[in-house]
Amino acid sequence: MRRTIVRYTGSRAEPGMDDLVDEAPVEFRLREVPIAVLMRTPGQDEDLGLGFAITEGIVLGPHEIEGITRRESENGDRFDIEPATGVEIDPEQFRRNLFTTSSCGVCGKASIDAVRVAARHVPAGPRLTPDQIVGLPEAMYEHQAGFATTGSIHAAAAFDPDRGFVALREDVGRHNAVDKLIGHLARRQWPLQPMVLAVSGRISFELVQKAAVAGIPVIAGVSGASSLAVELGDELGMTVIGFVREGRFNVYSGADRLA
Amino acid sequence: MRRTIVRYTGSRAEPGMDDLVDEAPVEFRLREVPIAVLMRTPGQDEDLGLGFAITEGIVLGPHEIEGITRRESENGDRFDIEPATGVEIDPEQFRRNLFTTSSCGVCGKASIDAVRVAARHVPAGPRLTPDQIVGLPEAMYEHQAGFATTGSIHAAAAFDPDRGFVALREDVGRHNAVDKLIGHLARRQWPLQPMVLAVSGRISFELVQKAAVAGIPVIAGVSGASSLAVELGDELGMTVIGFVREGRFNVYSGADRLA
Repeated sequence: MRRTIVRYTGSRAEPGMDDLVDEAPVEFRLREVPIAVLMRTPGQDEDLGLGFAITEGIVLGPHEIEGITRRESENGDRFDIEPATGVEIDPEQFRRNLFTTSSCGVCGKASIDAVRVAARHVPAGPRLTPDQIVGLPEAMYEHQAGFATTGSIHAAAAFDPDRGFVALREDVGRHNAVDKLIGHLARRQWPLQPMVLAVSGRISFELVQKAAVAGIPVIAGVSGASSLAVELGDELGMTVIGFVREGRFNVYSGADRLA
Repeated sequence: MRRTIVRYTGSRAEPGMDDLVDEAPVEFRLREVPIAVLMRTPGQDEDLGLGFAITEGIVLGPHEIEGITRRESENGDRFDIEPATGVEIDPEQFRRNLFTTSSCGVCGKASIDAVRVAARHVPAGPRLTPDQIVGLPEAMYEHQAGFATTGSIHAAAAFDPDRGFVALREDVGRHNAVDKLIGHLARRQWPLQPMVLAVSGRISFELVQKAAVAGIPVIAGVSGASSLAVELGDELGMTVIGFVREGRFNVYSGADRLA
């Protein structure tokens, strides 16, 4: 959104224009039952819905979804997720799950166990070189159109160890950027080849969880990782890398993937 | 959490130690009914529970809470919030609300109206000088013990226009840092005097909402503000300031509070 602002330099004020990152609510329903309302940057909402459904364990993959359709709604954007014929999903179950995971993604040890089960397919590969990790921030930045404009939007990108940059998505929400990316990737290939997920911010438990459930074995960020993110990485055999900046990085979990 | 890592400088690897920001789930119950599970940095959990209950509109102020008590639980930390005698709260109502606001804080126009009602007491003051705004990041940084250690933790601080720095709280979650701060402030004074809320990251709709419901009329951040954050600021008569960096800042809403 472009709007007028007052720009201060020291105590000198002058009117100006600025581009703000767009934020608006979107509701997803599963067989008519509301399962989530997300504050997101509008656009690629079908990918967001697909990625969210996968990384939250609502479906096992894109083959379990027949379609995601925009509906007219008074209160903003709404999308209906329709499972494929023969796929049994109880929306009430996920309604409850989403409640217990409000703002978080886990509810104690039981949920960590559930994540471990859902993420059982984290692959052993890939092998990576330090140069590949060091180059991630610059490779991301080249594709961050929204950041260049607003200076304030999260990004998530996928890199293939052999082919390099695959795709990048931006969103006002860290989790949404990851879900949009995974939804996009899942439409083209499933299960995903072993890839690297690069994120513009901090690595929390929830981001490691989403990567794991999507079968992405490596997550790297320009900022730090939390204790629980690293513990989950250890438990699942993932590689968690933080502070990728200016030719340096820290490997918290799974250093064996680095050559 | 302190742990061993592998630190890369270019392609040179060496073992090292690093401090990670602590992240762990906490459950809050209201009259025995689970109302929220938050991923937070352990500590000051009673303040977090009080601040959350206030900024999510569950109670109108600290006087409506009798106590917040830690309970033994197998699955991590749990706290019971006990409303004061005579205070009528239906936990199921908030359970539902929290569901619909999972990951977000609003569910369309209806919720924006609800925020406007809850935030009706946003005060007209205070008057601020540009120097006060310019000095916020440095004043915050002086008190950010967790950031100095981990390089990766969110902060929220309160400043009084007359007395300067009041308090600062840090947490792995942006919202939690704000709720811990507001819980702490609310124990000492309620309603709060007109203050400035300074945050270390982006200003989203939800942070403006939390400030508004707590009666804090000014929010300032070192990064940008979202479109919906600024729209809510406009609607409520709040001041929203972004990109407070190196002697400069942008005023998105409510520039009239600046002298």
